[in-house]
Amino acid sequence: MHYAQYLKLDSILDAQKLESEKLGKVAHDEMLFIIIHQAYELWFKQILFELGSIKDIFQADEVDDLKLGTITSRLDRVNKILKLLVDQVTIIETMTPSSFLEFRNLLNPASGFQSLQFRRLETLLGLKYEDRSTIEKKFFNLRLTKQESSELNAALKEPTIKELLDIWLSRLDLIDSKGFSFWKTLRETVVGMFAQDELLIQNNITLDDKEKSAELENLKKTIESFNVLFDQEKFDKEKFTFSRKSMLTALFITLYQDYPLMHLPFKILNSFLEMDEWITKWRYAHALMAKRMLGGKIGTGGSTGHEYLKKTAQRHVLFKDLFKLNSFLIAKSQRPNLPEHIKNQMSYHYQVLKKNV
Amino acid sequence: MHYAQYLKLDSILDAQKLESEKLGKVAHDEMLFIIIHQAYELWFKQILFELGSIKDIFQADEVDDLKLGTITSRLDRVNKILKLLVDQVTIIETMTPSSFLEFRNLLNPASGFQSLQFRRLETLLGLKYEDRSTIEKKFFNLRLTKQESSELNAALKEPTIKELLDIWLSRLDLIDSKGFSFWKTLRETVVGMFAQDELLIQNNITLDDKEKSAELENLKKTIESFNVLFDQEKFDKEKFTFSRKSMLTALFITLYQDYPLMHLPFKILNSFLEMDEWITKWRYAHALMAKRMLGGKIGTGGSTGHEYLKKTAQRHVLFKDLFKLNSFLIAKSQRPNLPEHIKNQMSYHYQVLKKNV
Amino acid sequence: MHYAQYLKLDSILDAQKLESEKLGKVAHDEMLFIIIHQAYELWFKQILFELGSIKDIFQADEVDDLKLGTITSRLDRVNKILKLLVDQVTIIETMTPSSFLEFRNLLNPASGFQSLQFRRLETLLGLKYEDRSTIEKKFFNLRLTKQESSELNAALKEPTIKELLDIWLSRLDLIDSKGFSFWKTLRETVVGMFAQDELLIQNNITLDDKEKSAELENLKKTIESFNVLFDQEKFDKEKFTFSRKSMLTALFITLYQDYPLMHLPFKILNSFLEMDEWITKWRYAHALMAKRMLGGKIGTGGSTGHEYLKKTAQRHVLFKDLFKLNSFLIAKSQRPNLPEHIKNQMSYHYQVLKKNV
Amino acid sequence: MHYAQYLKLDSILDAQKLESEKLGKVAHDEMLFIIIHQAYELWFKQILFELGSIKDIFQADEVDDLKLGTITSRLDRVNKILKLLVDQVTIIETMTPSSFLEFRNLLNPASGFQSLQFRRLETLLGLKYEDRSTIEKKFFNLRLTKQESSELNAALKEPTIKELLDIWLSRLDLIDSKGFSFWKTLRETVVGMFAQDELLIQNNITLDDKEKSAELENLKKTIESFNVLFDQEKFDKEKFTFSRKSMLTALFITLYQDYPLMHLPFKILNSFLEMDEWITKWRYAHALMAKRMLGGKIGTGGSTGHEYLKKTAQRHVLFKDLFKLNSFLIAKSQRPNLPEHIKNQMSYHYQVLKKNV
Repeated sequence: MHYAQYLKLDSILDAQKLESEKLGKVAHDEMLFIIIHQAYELWFKQILFELGSIKDIFQADEVDDLKLGTITSRLDRVNKILKLLVDQVTIIETMTPSSFLEFRNLLNPASGFQSLQFRRLETLLGLKYEDRSTIEKKFFNLRLTKQESSELNAALKEPTIKELLDIWLSRLDLIDSKGFSFWKTLRETVVGMFAQDELLIQNNITLDDKEKSAELENLKKTIESFNVLFDQEKFDKEKFTFSRKSMLTALFITLYQDYPLMHLPFKILNSFLEMDEWITKWRYAHALMAKRMLGGKIGTGGSTGHEYLKKTAQRHVLFKDLFKLNSFLIAKSQRPNLPEHIKNQMSYHYQVLKKNV
Repeated sequence: MHYAQYLKLDSILDAQKLESEKLGKVAHDEMLFIIIHQAYELWFKQILFELGSIKDIFQADEVDDLKLGTITSRLDRVNKILKLLVDQVTIIETMTPSSFLEFRNLLNPASGFQSLQFRRLETLLGLKYEDRSTIEKKFFNLRLTKQESSELNAALKEPTIKELLDIWLSRLDLIDSKGFSFWKTLRETVVGMFAQDELLIQNNITLDDKEKSAELENLKKTIESFNVLFDQEKFDKEKFTFSRKSMLTALFITLYQDYPLMHLPFKILNSFLEMDEWITKWRYAHALMAKRMLGGKIGTGGSTGHEYLKKTAQRHVLFKDLFKLNSFLIAKSQRPNLPEHIKNQMSYHYQVLKKNV
Repeated sequence: MHYAQYLKLDSILDAQKLESEKLGKVAHDEMLFIIIHQAYELWFKQILFELGSIKDIFQADEVDDLKLGTITSRLDRVNKILKLLVDQVTIIETMTPSSFLEFRNLLNPASGFQSLQFRRLETLLGLKYEDRSTIEKKFFNLRLTKQESSELNAALKEPTIKELLDIWLSRLDLIDSKGFSFWKTLRETVVGMFAQDELLIQNNITLDDKEKSAELENLKKTIESFNVLFDQEKFDKEKFTFSRKSMLTALFITLYQDYPLMHLPFKILNSFLEMDEWITKWRYAHALMAKRMLGGKIGTGGSTGHEYLKKTAQRHVLFKDLFKLNSFLIAKSQRPNLPEHIKNQMSYHYQVLKKNV
Repeated sequence: MHYAQYLKLDSILDAQKLESEKLGKVAHDEMLFIIIHQAYELWFKQILFELGSIKDIFQADEVDDLKLGTITSRLDRVNKILKLLVDQVTIIETMTPSSFLEFRNLLNPASGFQSLQFRRLETLLGLKYEDRSTIEKKFFNLRLTKQESSELNAALKEPTIKELLDIWLSRLDLIDSKGFSFWKTLRETVVGMFAQDELLIQNNITLDDKEKSAELENLKKTIESFNVLFDQEKFDKEKFTFSRKSMLTALFITLYQDYPLMHLPFKILNSFLEMDEWITKWRYAHALMAKRMLGGKIGTGGSTGHEYLKKTAQRHVLFKDLFKLNSFLIAKSQRPNLPEHIKNQMSYHYQVLKKNV
């Protein structure tokens, strides 16, 4: 076993062929351009490998206790890699726009749009073809080899991680079991809370009438937004992609995250939120970089790179529902008290961790 | 001299008074909330101190050679601090929304909107009151003490760094001196470049007619966008905040940044671009954090925090013109050749750095 | 409630008094020097606050299940803050040595050695006075006010987090219960593993005699190092600060970290390791910075700053035993199989997370 | 031109062959292990490419003014890449020691020691074979293919960047020209400075005799350390690797860094310092990671990885002389005033940057 053979360094380090060199005049910064994109693709492969294994776990008939820890550490790894990809933008930024122009035309019409792995990554997570922006749709199958195209289309038909997460959440029996209905208890709590809030506003002598009615109006809106959770009909009118049961389960997990049983499920939800944030940050850093590199120039394929990238940064958020969740949170001290048998269910068999004598 | 006295640690470390503690029940995470905001304010003070000194240098009758290096290192420092402020967001993100709800109401209606130093920072850089968003205008003077208010209004009347930069650029005699007209030479170069591009498209046999006319249309748009630089009337129609002379000078500096004389001026331009990027990243990270913390909840003062912050992130970009500059760049190998006497002017007196014998 | 009042910004932002200004000539960079140290002290306060609360939890008669998650998130926060403190070094590095020399003498003999909070932090974690380096001992009580001195000495008498962690580990009933002896089972596994390794070496035809005996010698050393765990007498000869029972428990937790019950305990151990790493990185970055700022110059108080800081970086590692733990690890696939009743004990009551139907 | 072809993604993404998979049981984390090392090697290639181009510039008969900016931006890029490599360690740290043990033996005796590119990188910068540690010497040529070995030995005979920097510095005519002798003037300044310091100590009534003599002893040591610069004989006794003329020139550059002519040379010196810091940080982070992964276990080849790496971190510092430089710095306000003709020489021909009217 030899280091260089093991890592196939002959393939890896022989894969930088500068177009500018072929034309007889090396554009120094083309090397960086190639290598950074290759590094990106290596990391995309790693992310796909991790996400693929997470998908496999979620797809099993039964999600084993011992696998929840595995999922959280792999999600954590993916997020650390995404952070690195964002940081990596600082390196491409050492290339000046003028240096880029030395070889930019030689690459035409190759474009980052064509990264198959990135499209597979988005697809695996849960981005639907129909939710992509117009320009992305246009580019989706463009200039792919047949094999790439069929790979991608096959990927589109697979269940996505987002869908599997929805299913997993909806199957957990947390919110309605053995005579305990979480959503009814929560509604009672919330109603009580808001009644008290209204009283406080009404009796607040420092507010004038106008301010008072503004505050009450505000409160009313908040109440209405909460009602979405308690009423299937209202829920259906909003654009949730998770089912109502999944949303309530996710809320339960978030509110009781300090219970040992809820710890890993909460970490999972949280890691997906973070993943969305990192992908958004990456798109955004990418957009700023394109703005700097190209100014407002019309890019390859007719898109103004920066505007395009900014739009996808906003449009392609995947776990929107998990973000919305936070608008239904209440303070820990106000959360409904759980019945004893539920509390016990959410603790460990093994009592020893409690003892310290 | 004693460490604690020198740093006035008695004041610094005695300034954390938890509202929740006053009410008898410490909300653990309020300490973090206070301390991180205090750390932000300390760094804002440092940034104001650095930017203030840069403003003073630019305001002098004569900007000394020896001061250009000072400006670049201070801008570099400011950018490093801004990066830290972005990184700092990861710390506040360790607070869960539920924990925040434990003390959030106690702070009402205090809000980050009220950071006087941040408003002064934006103002000093060049953000005009009239360019702020509606909600920012509403909050601009709200709940300030009289002294704060008058400080802020005085600040609004001061020349801004952006204006001083514009003046400095417009006074540099780079683009039109001793029989050399940069913009005319550039126009000739660009015209020649585009003529060749047109020829290439016309003769390209791999393009069908439709593609050909699309490419030509594209080229025409690019030519038009360049013409803005060469024609004062067209320039005036676009929304530049720098004068045309400043824009041309900035373009000259960027194109010839490898000449010793241009090195520091280029670094200055570049640092302002970076500063805008960091401030934008900071606003964006802030917006994501607010989204996470509050979901879609209506925030203090009636704004949905996240939407508001995202909007300012896009609206409050200051050095837009410097970003636009990059759309006028051409490859280094295509830039106009300078006449010998100009080249000499942009080198050092002292030739010794060239010799290596 | 007003933002500036809540944060006591009048105290915070009025606490920067430049010594150079008192002498009539502002040294520009002194402002940065003051503000960065104040920021450090703010964060030290936050760290002490978090660590203090962790100590309180560990000191309770019974460590509640619900508190383990709290401990891990606070440790995580402390580590994120420590990372920020390391990053912050890049900001002080924007000050050149020459600029530092403009005001350095004015601070004499004030010195970072005198940060009471940092000494309290080290003490709270578990650094003993007697384990400090000679120079640190000399400075430990120097130039403190009476109150500071008595605070610090009181802190020295308190149980440390490291000691409480040792106690908590030793009280967990994981390694020897209900007819299952972890250490005996582990010994059997390890002995079998090594016997097989020996066979492999003996039968390896690619090794010559000299290489063979070197490999066998190596193996013997590894076996001996493992025996330390199984033999109290050998254990006592090594310089462990944790008890043997704690070490075995920590090893158990690490080997079975994928069991739900072990997840949080493992995270706790891991966070303390990370904390040591961050503190070490901080000291190291600090040492490099001092080297750059002062060269080999003799520092205030007769120490050459850089050498001193490098020495403490190596000497003041606190959780040495947790680092050593990793030398006792074996591959997951080789770990002893646990008896069914132990496995059950380490799973959840609530079986629902397993079901996915 | 197609994205995947341009980047040779078929080679890049087909180069991950897991040894564990060949043996029939995929060790999940082996993929990460391979990919992160491939990413490291890609970046090493980029660093070698940049450093190679810097070497070429320095080796030319004449170092053109226009190239100094090129050198600084490439050094800056290398440093940003090195920072990324340090950050990348956080990703490999998501692999637990137990997971590593699942495939570690399969790699035996492949080892990071065998990275040819890293050895070439150290060699190109200036690390001599004879200055490597014993273990590094042993590994230097081990298990290389013939071609690799001859490549490496050829590299050892090339002039190094450090040597070329020394030559470049020694050829600059800054410190002794046209009747101005920098070192004589500096010596006069320093002597005057120290005489005043002595007076201050003698007349300081707050010091007792013992303290007074300690302070004077300190001062004497500082004076002696300065004399090394002024006396060739003393200089020769110290272990400098740069010539005395180079050291004085570097000191001149550092002291007068605010003069336009000195700006780029100073940035170059500073970037090499930073590069050493990043390489040291990388080795250190690597050492900590090895410690965590292997504990005190005897590593492949008989080295205890962590100790070895820590030792090289201290031993392989390249630009020691530049670090020492800082011990000869004096405050900007105390630096010798330059004669008018030298000042003029260090400014621009073109006076326009001064004007702001």
